[in-house]
Amino acid sequence: MHRLILQRRPFLCVGLDTDPDRLPDHLRQEADPVFSFNQAIIDATRDLCVAYKPNLAFYEAQGSAGWMALEKTIRYIGPDHFVIADAKRGDIGNTSRQYARAFFEQLRADALTVAPYMGADSVKPFLGFDQKWVILLALTSNPGSDDFQKTLQEEGRPLYEKVMRKAMSWAGRDELMFVVGATHPERFADIRRIAPGHFLLVPGVGAQGGSLEAICRHGFNDQVGLLVNSSRGILYAGSGPDFAAAARRAALALQQQMEALLNRAPSASEGNASSDVFPDSAG
Amino acid sequence: MHRLILQRRPFLCVGLDTDPDRLPDHLRQEADPVFSFNQAIIDATRDLCVAYKPNLAFYEAQGSAGWMALEKTIRYIGPDHFVIADAKRGDIGNTSRQYARAFFEQLRADALTVAPYMGADSVKPFLGFDQKWVILLALTSNPGSDDFQKTLQEEGRPLYEKVMRKAMSWAGRDELMFVVGATHPERFADIRRIAPGHFLLVPGVGAQGGSLEAICRHGFNDQVGLLVNSSRGILYAGSGPDFAAAARRAALALQQQMEALLNRAPSASEGNASSDVFPDSAG
Repeated sequence: MHRLILQRRPFLCVGLDTDPDRLPDHLRQEADPVFSFNQAIIDATRDLCVAYKPNLAFYEAQGSAGWMALEKTIRYIGPDHFVIADAKRGDIGNTSRQYARAFFEQLRADALTVAPYMGADSVKPFLGFDQKWVILLALTSNPGSDDFQKTLQEEGRPLYEKVMRKAMSWAGRDELMFVVGATHPERFADIRRIAPGHFLLVPGVGAQGGSLEAICRHGFNDQVGLLVNSSRGILYAGSGPDFAAAARRAALALQQQMEALLNRAPSASEGNASSDVFPDSAG
Repeated sequence: MHRLILQRRPFLCVGLDTDPDRLPDHLRQEADPVFSFNQAIIDATRDLCVAYKPNLAFYEAQGSAGWMALEKTIRYIGPDHFVIADAKRGDIGNTSRQYARAFFEQLRADALTVAPYMGADSVKPFLGFDQKWVILLALTSNPGSDDFQKTLQEEGRPLYEKVMRKAMSWAGRDELMFVVGATHPERFADIRRIAPGHFLLVPGVGAQGGSLEAICRHGFNDQVGLLVNSSRGILYAGSGPDFAAAARRAALALQQQMEALLNRAPSASEGNASSDVFPDSAG
């Protein structure tokens, strides 16, 4: 499956941070305005992205109705895109096992973002599912990433490096990615030194100010190695009845930038259409 | 409200980690077996505890139906107990704001467990709600707490201390507590040195092996300062038609131990009935 997806080349992930307060007025009389909005966004961007990333907070803020909108949205995305549940979960072993059920079995997402603070037994229950991925927080895009993630440990290296190295001892690149924010372009060379082969999910382009070009310069590896997310920049590109067309234009602009950057990066563009960018997935 | 609750003295929190696979057989034909189980547990323990702590993972594993059971459960608990949504959330600012809506406004929980890895702007959106509490992960009860939480920072102190000190610069003891696992009794003196006045939510007694007596010795402060959680030890004390009576016996045994420990701790028992154990709550 991922092989098919990635033959389309753009490494764009569309974040579905659907805020009921920001829906175009004409959708408000729909039975499920959040789902109607998501349908229109998905229809407008399907051919431009490889992944969708619903942000759980926006659905949970609507209670059980929001959870239903999320279930419908993931079904609507269908099997041809990689679905990342952006939930940043992580708890003691028996609880992480329940979260794994929630996201991998009940919602049928392909990947889940996981928070590392609670260590090995909070992360491992998400591993070992067939064709499912853990996307572990390493260096996030927000200003608060300075507070703990970047602070040096006694051996002189930042916490995010410790997190990445530990996690790489728990799982291989066929089921583990890392979240690295686009707002830290100066760290991408360091991160590629730590994890040359792993995919990185990169939020923070657009509304948060990260530059696509800067992160690609050091972030690409021989399998592209990046999934770049944009949420607000696409979802709220327009606010009127033509919001979906505006979203498509915003996604297309990003996708074209990605295409150009891939063409400039010889190792990433060569053979990309035929290589298996998500290794070990069944195709 | 909390004043009333705490005049009842026991500092017991009953964790509602309701696992559909562990429900007594006779509940399985109910319309909503999880909610029926929770109702019976709540009825059996109401007078023995000050707080309930639903564990979100167990509800999310059932999708939107689970979320509905959770909404009903929190309404059923009612206003006389402190409700902790054990969700371990934390994300970039605009997303944490949505989680705050989800848990404080939509579900109407009194408190939420929050994960610190993403730093200040991931935690602050949960602060400043009237009579709502952030319970920040400091030193969790699971074996994985060794991986990052206990590791020393360059200044020679463990990460959990850095987390606690930073958080104490963001919020006072009237809206901030910390999670400290009962499986680290040797750390309670250190933790009380860092945060003498804050309430600690203490999981890990019972199934995880922590000793109540050991954690009280250094954990009590002049306002008790502890909320001790038991989940599996109460919920699954019995597995037949008498499961609720068995749960009551398990809760009563813990509550009596707590009573005895409070009576032995002069500073904690004196004036406890009249002092405001949750300071600054309106009563």
